[in-house]
Amino acid sequence: MNIEQLKSKDEYYMRLALLEAETAYTEGEIPVGAVIVCRDRIIARAHNLTETLHDVTAHAEMQVITMAANEIGGKYLQDCTLYVTLEPCIMCAGAIGWAQLGRVVYGCADERRGFSVHAPQALHPKASVVSGILENECRNIMLRFFREKR
Amino acid sequence: MNIEQLKSKDEYYMRLALLEAETAYTEGEIPVGAVIVCRDRIIARAHNLTETLHDVTAHAEMQVITMAANEIGGKYLQDCTLYVTLEPCIMCAGAIGWAQLGRVVYGCADERRGFSVHAPQALHPKASVVSGILENECRNIMLRFFREKR
Repeated sequence: MNIEQLKSKDEYYMRLALLEAETAYTEGEIPVGAVIVCRDRIIARAHNLTETLHDVTAHAEMQVITMAANEIGGKYLQDCTLYVTLEPCIMCAGAIGWAQLGRVVYGCADERRGFSVHAPQALHPKASVVSGILENECRNIMLRFFREKR
Repeated sequence: MNIEQLKSKDEYYMRLALLEAETAYTEGEIPVGAVIVCRDRIIARAHNLTETLHDVTAHAEMQVITMAANEIGGKYLQDCTLYVTLEPCIMCAGAIGWAQLGRVVYGCADERRGFSVHAPQALHPKASVVSGILENECRNIMLRFFREKR
């Protein structure tokens, strides 16, 4: 697969993550969505549920990792890619590291809470990271949400 | 309360966390236990369940934060103390930060995976941290577990 094809595939899956973020938005949740793909098969989709569940641990990434592990019947996700609309926080990056996710693709950066500043070694050493896929769409849904909340 | 009384109280709750770790041990789980106390009331107890649930996110701290939030009907745990036998990892420290736990007491350090090295800013800025409570007991149960696994 060449770079253009990979980028187009990444955009496709990120669009599904954005659909999850839209669902979160309509539920009054901070709109973050995530998808896990294993060898071109979508094995889990989820969105942030912290308000609904009154649970700070219910970020999209945490939900989707738990779901993916249930789906494949094992804890480790080396052959999987996680797509998430917002850069993972420290907590989620720690979980991504424990799950040994092989590849992480995120939409827009989170300067305040993102792992790349606060816990740069959280992921598995072999994991590859791509950022900026559908960056504007991923940022805009967050901006829209917080604008309406104020 | 003077320092001696506080230490004795911390040891009491850490002993309950150790009982949880013992339960984990008997279930074949890495023996880590946790308790959350809110104004002298124990509101949640849990132990590591990663093997049982095939879920890397099922650390004792994650379980106990979710349980405590359910118990008090809110996401934030500012007035609570988390007792945990092992120093929290990056993921759990991130969750502790999101939950705004006011105080964290842990037994033995985790040099390889502990947050204090890899994500020192994960906790809420106002949180206080105490380490080394029943340190030997907390370390010994881990050593015993890994010795038997080999």
